[in-house]
Amino acid sequence: MSDQTDDWTRLTTGLRQQAGIEDVKVSLGLLQRIGQVLRAGNWDVTAILDMHSWEQPQGPPRLIDLHPGKEMIPPPLWAAAIDIGTTTVTVWLVDLITGKVEAQTAQYNQQISRGEDVVSRIIFAGKDGGGENLRQLVLATINELLGTACKRIKADPPLVSTDILKATMVGNSTMMHLALGIPPENIRLLPFITTANQMPQLTAHEIGINIHPDGTIDCLPGVASYVGADITAGVLSSGLNDTEQVTLFMDIGTNGEIVLGSREWLVTCACSAGPAFEGAGVGDGMRATKGAIEDIWINDANLEPTFRVIGNVKPRGICGSGLIALLAEMFLTGVIDKAGNFNSNHKTSRIRQGEHGWEYAICFGADTGHGEDIVITHVDVDNLLRAKAAVYAGFTVLAESVGIPLDWVEQVLIGGSFGKYINVEKAIEIGLLPDLPWDKFQFLGNTAVRGAYLALLDRGARSQVKEIASRMTYIELSADNKFYDAFISALFLPHTDLSRFPSVEAAITNEQE
Amino acid sequence: MSDQTDDWTRLTTGLRQQAGIEDVKVSLGLLQRIGQVLRAGNWDVTAILDMHSWEQPQGPPRLIDLHPGKEMIPPPLWAAAIDIGTTTVTVWLVDLITGKVEAQTAQYNQQISRGEDVVSRIIFAGKDGGGENLRQLVLATINELLGTACKRIKADPPLVSTDILKATMVGNSTMMHLALGIPPENIRLLPFITTANQMPQLTAHEIGINIHPDGTIDCLPGVASYVGADITAGVLSSGLNDTEQVTLFMDIGTNGEIVLGSREWLVTCACSAGPAFEGAGVGDGMRATKGAIEDIWINDANLEPTFRVIGNVKPRGICGSGLIALLAEMFLTGVIDKAGNFNSNHKTSRIRQGEHGWEYAICFGADTGHGEDIVITHVDVDNLLRAKAAVYAGFTVLAESVGIPLDWVEQVLIGGSFGKYINVEKAIEIGLLPDLPWDKFQFLGNTAVRGAYLALLDRGARSQVKEIASRMTYIELSADNKFYDAFISALFLPHTDLSRFPSVEAAITNEQE
Repeated sequence: MSDQTDDWTRLTTGLRQQAGIEDVKVSLGLLQRIGQVLRAGNWDVTAILDMHSWEQPQGPPRLIDLHPGKEMIPPPLWAAAIDIGTTTVTVWLVDLITGKVEAQTAQYNQQISRGEDVVSRIIFAGKDGGGENLRQLVLATINELLGTACKRIKADPPLVSTDILKATMVGNSTMMHLALGIPPENIRLLPFITTANQMPQLTAHEIGINIHPDGTIDCLPGVASYVGADITAGVLSSGLNDTEQVTLFMDIGTNGEIVLGSREWLVTCACSAGPAFEGAGVGDGMRATKGAIEDIWINDANLEPTFRVIGNVKPRGICGSGLIALLAEMFLTGVIDKAGNFNSNHKTSRIRQGEHGWEYAICFGADTGHGEDIVITHVDVDNLLRAKAAVYAGFTVLAESVGIPLDWVEQVLIGGSFGKYINVEKAIEIGLLPDLPWDKFQFLGNTAVRGAYLALLDRGARSQVKEIASRMTYIELSADNKFYDAFISALFLPHTDLSRFPSVEAAITNEQE
Repeated sequence: MSDQTDDWTRLTTGLRQQAGIEDVKVSLGLLQRIGQVLRAGNWDVTAILDMHSWEQPQGPPRLIDLHPGKEMIPPPLWAAAIDIGTTTVTVWLVDLITGKVEAQTAQYNQQISRGEDVVSRIIFAGKDGGGENLRQLVLATINELLGTACKRIKADPPLVSTDILKATMVGNSTMMHLALGIPPENIRLLPFITTANQMPQLTAHEIGINIHPDGTIDCLPGVASYVGADITAGVLSSGLNDTEQVTLFMDIGTNGEIVLGSREWLVTCACSAGPAFEGAGVGDGMRATKGAIEDIWINDANLEPTFRVIGNVKPRGICGSGLIALLAEMFLTGVIDKAGNFNSNHKTSRIRQGEHGWEYAICFGADTGHGEDIVITHVDVDNLLRAKAAVYAGFTVLAESVGIPLDWVEQVLIGGSFGKYINVEKAIEIGLLPDLPWDKFQFLGNTAVRGAYLALLDRGARSQVKEIASRMTYIELSADNKFYDAFISALFLPHTDLSRFPSVEAAITNEQE
């Protein structure tokens, strides 16, 4: 009775005296509960604070939760790293105390039903209620993944997603806009300006992500409409920002983003490769799942194919790595010429006129999983050529922009799930990758979610990624005539200028001998 | 195309260059709209910012809204001052540009249907769903008042409450807790501790108040469970914190809060007067509305009453000022003695035995608005005596706590709507107010809403009210034996110790002569 201090002042006094925290922010939702918690713990409580605000590094910490009782040995403190891919959403569940990733989950972005690529999503978002529909779909995807990840943790009581106290989120700029309900329309319209590359720090409750409602969601910063937070996160986790070697970093997913640089300088562009190498835009294309042809060889003599299918089942289609191999094999065996035209002079029933013009039959219906022929058509080849030409033209323009030849590149770091499966030799043969020694290529997997994970653990990483975003020079290719010229030159197999691909030149010569 | 800066950076750059604002906060809801607004204004926009955070005076300003186009002459900038009384909620609508109050509205707090006083509200809040129900009721009241206030403004297009960009809010601690959905139970339980006397700065959206969703709601600070933000606001607007005179400030509404002090020192207490003087706890009591007896005289010879009724209609009951006058008249004419007992020896049909014991009939059914007698019973008199004794005991203990006699008080400032109607002479005669020269009393009306209004206009006033809250010494009367003794002594008319009321002593002597 002699001390009439209110609950909140008692709590903040404790934080000041025991932890040196001078000032603290709190949500109304948590304030509504603190009286009960303080008394349930008989005035011994454990406070969980987010000490570091993304936007205001010098600002006050935020109280996220308060538990009754003193917890001298901290429990796992759960956090999530979220990568919103146009095609696939990935969630890593992390124990902040140990720093370990305890569960990894991924599934298709449910927005796919509304369009395969960012442009079709932006168009859909412009329809009445479309943006809200897309927001709900991606939130549903994220929330399902969070639930799945929690189920993988053995805990008693079972872990639920609201036990997760913080998250970092990356994705391309369109995905970030859609997830936050920000209209993405200007990303598609000239001059391609985002609403924000650096989103403010938000709570889970504000966004609608089903972790602890007061949990912070830190969206990593992007650079431009087509170089988003997934790329800055990728630069961080690939170490590109901290290497002395001239490095080419690429993330060829549904979009194709490229970064060239080192610790001294960084230039970046997006080359709108389109989703051909993810299996879309190709009639029998499919994702790299069970039943996909993932590698293929064509017999030089009779043009009969041999292939490897994911899961060792009858094939149902062909995925990105298979398409690269197929294009390379068709080129080297003369099924197609360097412009991608089918050679109708070969004596084989596999090269034939189909519904969409000339095509090559990879597998006849009798041997496929669905009973129909798997083929690659002239249209498919054109789409693949355009995709690979866009990527290669991107490299070219970036290198030219800083005045260095491509063969000065000391290492090539390939992010994105796509990179995991491709065969460097064959990717060089079609002119998708520059002709460098194979040991200079490294496949890093999902660099975006790994960058989000690093930013979750380490405030140093958070400042680094901000610094990366601010010092990346973005080159808008659609404003650049050089890109168009480079693209046209790259529409050939491997390239108009064969001197750029000496190893392929040698291979062609060998074949021809 | 050559400048790929995102919308948000363009806006913040403009704020930095044109207004010197280095950093700015924004809600997700507003961020979702800025792309459209910037383009609608062809990159000329008018930004509305809350420059001063209540909690973090040094923190960054917050963007509240953005309008397309340059508005060189600012329009009215609307804000609201809200006082949540236990009985009455008051809203003032203010133009921040001119500082003028453009509309004043008040209505009963809809929570009244769940209990007349704070204690019954707290008990109701403890029931399942009770707290949420009370929250909804007070928000509905506030939102209706905001709507009403807007309708009073002649504007084209019509003003709507979401045009209001900021609000300040005051009320006793229970009202503040209930409006924010914070369980108030510990306010009633020993040792009477609030969850928070100083609420964090919140947005209208978070609380559910129907002004602009990003509008800031600043809740003024309280001092203790029974001395809330309405009292600190009252001290501010009464000028008590800035006077050299020893001043007694009282706000006798449903609760009775008292402050004694000057610019040098401030002590305060709450005396749980109860709502008797607001007409509750008195059988024929009513609020000061049409049909209420507001003043009364009793003929010394035949004990016949003469009274004045609000609205000049047949009476339906008696309000606070009427009750004070009635108690004084009954005492001075000997209808009741100094202990409040009825004198059954008088020869008049007005003093009689009723259902609840002895009573005085103020008006017979033939002359009332509802056809029934209006009476004051022994039980009513007891309730009024307890109420006035609690208030007087509060003065006594406060004065004793700082070691000064009550007659050193140089001015008495009376806040609350109650104060507007009472007759000082009669209030002294019953011992409700201390026996000081009448010219020392000032009636200030609703000092709480006026304090909220001052805090809305002036950040200096906001710092003052924080400073007032921090330097007020709260005396918890229920922990104080002196209060109980003072209360018992004050249960007489005007007081056990008649020497404290020399003017009343003289009046009694005159009557007896």
